[in-house]
Amino acid sequence: MTATLRELADQFGCELHGADRAVTRVGTLSGAGPDAVTFLANAAYRKQLEATRAAAVVLEEKHRAGCPVASLVHPQPYLTYARIATYLNPPLVAVPGVAASAVLAAGVRVAPSAEVGAQVVIGGGCVIGDGAVIGPGCVLGANVAVGAGSRLVARVTVLDDVRIGARCILQPGAVIGADGFGFAPDAGKWLKIPQLGGVVIGDDVEIGANTCIDRGTIDDTVIEDGVKLDNLVQIAHNVRVGAHTVMAAMSGAAGSTKIGKRCMVGGGAVMINQISICDDVMIMFRGVVTKSIDKPGTYSSALPADEVGRWRRNAARFKKLDALAERVRAAERALGLTGKTKAEQTDD
Amino acid sequence: MTATLRELADQFGCELHGADRAVTRVGTLSGAGPDAVTFLANAAYRKQLEATRAAAVVLEEKHRAGCPVASLVHPQPYLTYARIATYLNPPLVAVPGVAASAVLAAGVRVAPSAEVGAQVVIGGGCVIGDGAVIGPGCVLGANVAVGAGSRLVARVTVLDDVRIGARCILQPGAVIGADGFGFAPDAGKWLKIPQLGGVVIGDDVEIGANTCIDRGTIDDTVIEDGVKLDNLVQIAHNVRVGAHTVMAAMSGAAGSTKIGKRCMVGGGAVMINQISICDDVMIMFRGVVTKSIDKPGTYSSALPADEVGRWRRNAARFKKLDALAERVRAAERALGLTGKTKAEQTDD
Amino acid sequence: MTATLRELADQFGCELHGADRAVTRVGTLSGAGPDAVTFLANAAYRKQLEATRAAAVVLEEKHRAGCPVASLVHPQPYLTYARIATYLNPPLVAVPGVAASAVLAAGVRVAPSAEVGAQVVIGGGCVIGDGAVIGPGCVLGANVAVGAGSRLVARVTVLDDVRIGARCILQPGAVIGADGFGFAPDAGKWLKIPQLGGVVIGDDVEIGANTCIDRGTIDDTVIEDGVKLDNLVQIAHNVRVGAHTVMAAMSGAAGSTKIGKRCMVGGGAVMINQISICDDVMIMFRGVVTKSIDKPGTYSSALPADEVGRWRRNAARFKKLDALAERVRAAERALGLTGKTKAEQTDD
Repeated sequence: MTATLRELADQFGCELHGADRAVTRVGTLSGAGPDAVTFLANAAYRKQLEATRAAAVVLEEKHRAGCPVASLVHPQPYLTYARIATYLNPPLVAVPGVAASAVLAAGVRVAPSAEVGAQVVIGGGCVIGDGAVIGPGCVLGANVAVGAGSRLVARVTVLDDVRIGARCILQPGAVIGADGFGFAPDAGKWLKIPQLGGVVIGDDVEIGANTCIDRGTIDDTVIEDGVKLDNLVQIAHNVRVGAHTVMAAMSGAAGSTKIGKRCMVGGGAVMINQISICDDVMIMFRGVVTKSIDKPGTYSSALPADEVGRWRRNAARFKKLDALAERVRAAERALGLTGKTKAEQTDD
Repeated sequence: MTATLRELADQFGCELHGADRAVTRVGTLSGAGPDAVTFLANAAYRKQLEATRAAAVVLEEKHRAGCPVASLVHPQPYLTYARIATYLNPPLVAVPGVAASAVLAAGVRVAPSAEVGAQVVIGGGCVIGDGAVIGPGCVLGANVAVGAGSRLVARVTVLDDVRIGARCILQPGAVIGADGFGFAPDAGKWLKIPQLGGVVIGDDVEIGANTCIDRGTIDDTVIEDGVKLDNLVQIAHNVRVGAHTVMAAMSGAAGSTKIGKRCMVGGGAVMINQISICDDVMIMFRGVVTKSIDKPGTYSSALPADEVGRWRRNAARFKKLDALAERVRAAERALGLTGKTKAEQTDD
Repeated sequence: MTATLRELADQFGCELHGADRAVTRVGTLSGAGPDAVTFLANAAYRKQLEATRAAAVVLEEKHRAGCPVASLVHPQPYLTYARIATYLNPPLVAVPGVAASAVLAAGVRVAPSAEVGAQVVIGGGCVIGDGAVIGPGCVLGANVAVGAGSRLVARVTVLDDVRIGARCILQPGAVIGADGFGFAPDAGKWLKIPQLGGVVIGDDVEIGANTCIDRGTIDDTVIEDGVKLDNLVQIAHNVRVGAHTVMAAMSGAAGSTKIGKRCMVGGGAVMINQISICDDVMIMFRGVVTKSIDKPGTYSSALPADEVGRWRRNAARFKKLDALAERVRAAERALGLTGKTKAEQTDD
């Protein structure tokens, strides 16, 4: 797609400063050439701004002075960049039709505008919406609904009775609707609990590569509108992920946990089973949440890597931390100290 | 499936209290209607018991008084619920036959009662047992044996020389028999060690979605009878997982580690290579096991998430914990204290 | 493959001590029979050496005296074992041809010596090099290049515009080129940032089962020559992994992070986004790297699992570690101590 800077400014509400010209692509501050638009969203990259050879830079007014080329001024440069990048690189659309090698059960309803790729398998009772894409190698069980404009990129597995909303994107290897992990102890063995619920996925959801969302035990597992899950994420049975929550790679939620709306879960962060996380919580990279959180805010539990010798000395002390605290108490007693810190005294 | 409460009571050894009626499904305490059986296994849900509209509740005698509807009394309500749920929702059975789109090498033996789904690929020398199901999109290498009644749900990959026992369930995306991660250092590069062993999986094993079990280097990787692995689990080469051990999602065992029988490995918990875990060990959620464990019990190593400001202050102190302990020792010396805690003094 | 010990000694630069004989396989010290070669690379296994019934043992000169059978003496026994094992078990080679069930877009170029397996899908513009193998169930998007001698074992997904070098091995379930996880906040929702870069994979790279490597946002994600990634690894968009770096299972690097050459990343170890790790760094098992590392060495951050009661007491103290340190400071003041440890005093 080609556009002039003037067209982009008009389309996305920017102020254009500098000469108009045609552009065809986006680029990085350092890599963009004279046919590309780039952006400055983080003041840390100002040095690269000074050296850019892009056609234009999307930036805030306060950074305009440092820009050696044309600028597209907007108070939200990153968002505006995303819009321009999407405009210049529109998402693929369905190529209507069903590949000859796809195997569809009797009674499957595929919208005439939908695309079903090579080597796909679709079970009985499935409904594929307008403009949806079932990419090559996908397997759909029985009674799956795929909403209008959704794209299962390739080799996605969706098992029976899963409903997927509109405009979703499922990356390759994702598995939706596998059995939850439920077993009852039975004289030293384990008896499988039938996993009878489904999975309901809202609109505008993105699900990463090799991510797993298990079906519910009795009720459904629910992913609300606008949720974005990265790769290798685990969503156990009966979990609910609130609208517009994002979960980065390798994060997970154990069985029956409820995550609020607009939460941000960092990479590798996990939540134990049967807890509730309220709206607007951020769990930092590799955090481990073992209790419900009822107060919006940021939570962390990862200790950062240290040089191994120092790490080991500290870790060895940690193993005796309780005893160390008792020793401090004994010393305080010998000194007639209360052992309260200033913060704690103020609380009195 | 429909059954009367009386039939269920007789079949599963419950005492029926209250009016008999027909039921067709199971439900949750709060969601079940008058056609459904539910259960109370955890006293924390007593409030929901009082409000239930289910046909009947499976519960212990001690909770019967609080039950507003019929009850099916049994000392193990969760297990009994699992049996009733399975009875009302019997597992799918194989639909005998081989799909037209499946590609089978010459000489593959498929039992007449077995099912081979669409787009399946089966290599030479494979043997598919009575009533087994090879679901759509699965790929089997050469010389794979799948035992009677086992189900590879869909899009499972099983590479050469893997043996799978009877009544196993393999969820989509599981990869059994990929090469173990073995390389010898060779002048700044890495030389691949051939991975020549297989994988042996016992009877009644369940393997979760996108879980990986690598083949052994020389001997086999072994998953004993009754093991249950959740999603996204990693089992490295030469590992042995003992009978009836369960491993929750995102857990893993590194190369050559041996896990005992009846262990419970929490979500995200990992074991380093070449250690042994004895029988009846529980590793809690996100634990990191770096040494062999030879004593049954429960082990933990995850620090729970905290509000980020407090977390950071504590983490900063952790970086100097060894120095803090030395400072405590110096204070003790100045005070003439031994530095032994009461517990340690008792040990003398 | 059969070989005599003399042939192996000549071929791989070993000194043969003891009787020559023919061997056909490799084995473990304890499992090898008189037709097998084994090795001793770790003195901890000397007891097993004394009892071995192998045809010969590859070992260092210093261990020869303890060897009850023939020995193949070499200063690098593990590397030499790897070479012998590979010699006796040569890797599979391509069986040239395209399976009838494979679906290739018009214009795909497959080298005559390459193999394309059953149920494969290959998009327009792909180029499959000499002797390459595209195993059963693989899906390749458009414009993918697979170098000479590379093997996509089975059910690998490679999306548009990914370049894979020569002699690579991609294990089943790997997903190369899925969209990176990039979204701009937009009035309480998230707007997808188009992921326009590709993935470039060098020569001699191995990628584990169900591992994910995302495409770059604008520039490419890069995996340099000789990198080895284990199973369930996450490589986010714009990451660069330096040559001959190895990453064990369940490890990962978040967006735009650069990892140096010859690094070793332990199982489950993760790196936050936008940091740089210099060459020759080892991150230990389950480490969490939150800052750039500019000094070669070994880094750790995992606390090892402990008996749960003791763990909980220590973890509870950790929650008040900052306050404990303040209390130590107060005690030091009362005692007229400086609070400096010996190490810190020496620094003055």
